[in-house]
Amino acid sequence: MTMTPPVGIHILSSLYSCEKVNSLDKKALSEKITQLLHDNQLTKLGEFYHEFEGGGVTALIALAESHLALHTWPELDYLTLEIYVCNYSRDNSEAAEKVHSGLVSFLEPGRIETHRVHR
Amino acid sequence: MTMTPPVGIHILSSLYSCEKVNSLDKKALSEKITQLLHDNQLTKLGEFYHEFEGGGVTALIALAESHLALHTWPELDYLTLEIYVCNYSRDNSEAAEKVHSGLVSFLEPGRIETHRVHR
Repeated sequence: MTMTPPVGIHILSSLYSCEKVNSLDKKALSEKITQLLHDNQLTKLGEFYHEFEGGGVTALIALAESHLALHTWPELDYLTLEIYVCNYSRDNSEAAEKVHSGLVSFLEPGRIETHRVHR
Repeated sequence: MTMTPPVGIHILSSLYSCEKVNSLDKKALSEKITQLLHDNQLTKLGEFYHEFEGGGVTALIALAESHLALHTWPELDYLTLEIYVCNYSRDNSEAAEKVHSGLVSFLEPGRIETHRVHR
């Protein structure tokens, strides 16, 4: 197949009224992300987690297919979540949607706003 | 100041006809990113670089203010670039715009397409 850019999809969500961020454990989050990536045949190349003093977690996961990122603001019951996959070797759009919806189910927000950017 | 979500800006660009990705050196790229972040008072927490066999680089930079990411497809003269900053402690929007434009100048694309998402 001949590819021309744009080659992928970037799903960006804001999760509001998400009380779960207050008790969000880095280990539980990491396990959930790793499991969802594995179940959907996406390949993790590396990861970086940071816990802020006073609360808040940043997670950056490098994928062979691009990346996943998550940032929490416990004091606002708020977090942002994104997954970006290229569809270069095969179409990973469905896998990205499944990882995204799996994480949203896990995080249980009161309200969610999602943008999809083709790039 | 009282903050309510959304708390930041995410600038996402696609850079087309970017011949420079063919000779893009991880070290030069890392130095440029680090310099631009420093010049604009953004704080790097950690970074992950990956060079793909046969070409292509992924760069994920965790910031105290959120993240920066870059993915290249040398065979398509194409790359995607993004910077996401929260404006929680102070307004980092101008700093994000400057880092973004500094990287675009450095990468010299023939054409660029940019989306800005408030989140």
